[in-house]
Amino acid sequence: MDKKKIKKISERCALQEILDVIGGKWSMSIIYALFPGKKRFGELERLIPGINTRMLVKELKNMEANGIVTRTVFATVPPTVEYTLTLKGEKLEPIINELYKWGLEHVS
Amino acid sequence: MDKKKIKKISERCALQEILDVIGGKWSMSIIYALFPGKKRFGELERLIPGINTRMLVKELKNMEANGIVTRTVFATVPPTVEYTLTLKGEKLEPIINELYKWGLEHVS
Repeated sequence: MDKKKIKKISERCALQEILDVIGGKWSMSIIYALFPGKKRFGELERLIPGINTRMLVKELKNMEANGIVTRTVFATVPPTVEYTLTLKGEKLEPIINELYKWGLEHVS
Repeated sequence: MDKKKIKKISERCALQEILDVIGGKWSMSIIYALFPGKKRFGELERLIPGINTRMLVKELKNMEANGIVTRTVFATVPPTVEYTLTLKGEKLEPIINELYKWGLEHVS
């Protein structure tokens, strides 16, 4: 396979990776809420208006599978669950901040 | 309404704006293909493997409505249709390039 073709395929995979991670209705809000640091499930729920428990569970599972979020369970009574961004997720911070700026500038 | 609440609402609108523009399956590929300059419909179709004519028409209409793309028809025989990014669309270039880099680094 020639180099140009390999580049094309990598670009398409990269695009798929991006859409898997930030293309969902809630994923960017969750990533955004996690930028300042770890959050408990309930905190995330309060920080993201409009999301419901089922959707938040689903999105967080998806983000864990994509290597964006780490879930830690503490053996307290009742158990505490904390979410943090992985390094891969943290690297999105400057990019998502730029996207937000662009969006704020162009909100119709 | 207090300032914090207004900020929250603007952030949510900004997020909606971003997802409208780049959250679609094909929109980022189309924007990416238009970065180097204007393209005819047929050129775009060739540059984006996997897209079909119906989808490309639909996405371009949506992008025109979102103010990302300008469509110009030239009165040639047969008519020529060219697409270019608007200023709003061009401003996405550095951000989408960063997203691509991030994606390429993390393709699983």
